Amino acid sequence: MDEVRLIEVKEDILADNQDLAAKLRAQLRSSRTYLLNLMSSPGSGKTSLIMRTIEHLQGRYRIGVIEADIDSTVDAEKVAAMGVKAVQLRTGGFCHLDATMVASGLAAFDLSAFDLIIIENVGNLVCPAEFDTGAIHNAMILSVPEGDDKPLKYPLMFSVSQALLVNKTDYLGLSDFDMATLKEHTKRLNPGMAIFEVSCKTGDGIEAWSEWLAARVAAFIR
Amino acid sequence: MDEVRLIEVKEDILADNQDLAAKLRAQLRSSRTYLLNLMSSPGSGKTSLIMRTIEHLQGRYRIGVIEADIDSTVDAEKVAAMGVKAVQLRTGGFCHLDATMVASGLAAFDLSAFDLIIIENVGNLVCPAEFDTGAIHNAMILSVPEGDDKPLKYPLMFSVSQALLVNKTDYLGLSDFDMATLKEHTKRLNPGMAIFEVSCKTGDGIEAWSEWLAARVAAFIR
Repeated sequence: MDEVRLIEVKEDILADNQDLAAKLRAQLRSSRTYLLNLMSSPGSGKTSLIMRTIEHLQGRYRIGVIEADIDSTVDAEKVAAMGVKAVQLRTGGFCHLDATMVASGLAAFDLSAFDLIIIENVGNLVCPAEFDTGAIHNAMILSVPEGDDKPLKYPLMFSVSQALLVNKTDYLGLSDFDMATLKEHTKRLNPGMAIFEVSCKTGDGIEAWSEWLAARVAAFIR
Repeated sequence: MDEVRLIEVKEDILADNQDLAAKLRAQLRSSRTYLLNLMSSPGSGKTSLIMRTIEHLQGRYRIGVIEADIDSTVDAEKVAAMGVKAVQLRTGGFCHLDATMVASGLAAFDLSAFDLIIIENVGNLVCPAEFDTGAIHNAMILSVPEGDDKPLKYPLMFSVSQALLVNKTDYLGLSDFDMATLKEHTKRLNPGMAIFEVSCKTGDGIEAWSEWLAARVAAFIR
């Protein structure tokens, strides 16, 4: 019987991706552009959050958006209508962004003219968590209708993100979603996670989140 | 309002993949190694077909296998137990093979010592059809329990394959699968498709398929 040779292609791919992501971060440091990678399931409110965040920070920072979520009903046109430069990546059904795709998006910007670029990743709680995009920080949204048990089902996503936005808090009264349970599970996976309860519909909690982000942008670009 | 810049990342990725696949084919031509890419849904019988094909062709050609279907219950160990060199690619949940992954697999072979290498692609009728692996020909399996309407649902897979194996014909009596309907739909998408009715369980039809393959290997390596 011949011996079976085992080749870890996934590890190779993730290692190559990691190398490119590190190069992108070096480029962002040199241009003083803070890149945020925003992830969530489809329909959790990524585009709405980006628009709310732009409203809060537009006067203070020069903002751009890289839009990749093909399932989003509010798309790059709506962001662009706010006077913000938006690049739409057509991913044709791919389930995540990798550093190569983000590099294509960043190449469309004169980075020296931008302080903050937000990536709206593909709507998916699994694959995007595995691929380093080159972003300085990751943020994720969990919306109340998705349920408080998601840290147990998607631990990697909750582990690689520095901020969790619990969106659609206006649904809390209609739901058995338990915020204390969510926070307990989240803190167990990621003790340093910043957690914000927000409603993109009413605007509740958006200021606290925006100021958290603003502080990180300011520290990075100074 | 700013203009939205649209970037087709998927087209770029497929174009890069195509370039590498063409290089792999040039390498295979120079080493006279015929590479077959075998695709199907999970559980359609890829590993069983590979083992049946090895039984028929093992004396005539020096055969190797690149195994990527993580859902397969019969894995590279069983192929290796037949005395055939087998390489297992651990794809960690990726939904298809691309030319980069196949290149990693081929690098484990001394190509000059192999006439025929069969790739067992990831079990999926969608994504594998989009990525050229560098193979000389593609073959696909459709098993009778999957139904005769699959050409309508997965037209790309039926278009990019040169041979269709209709497996598990021993189920035909238990099913409303209509072979004439399948062939009609298939021929409309791909008039040149070679179609083989086989049962990996009973061995029916395996000889006709194996001789079709043998003729292609012989023409390529002579």
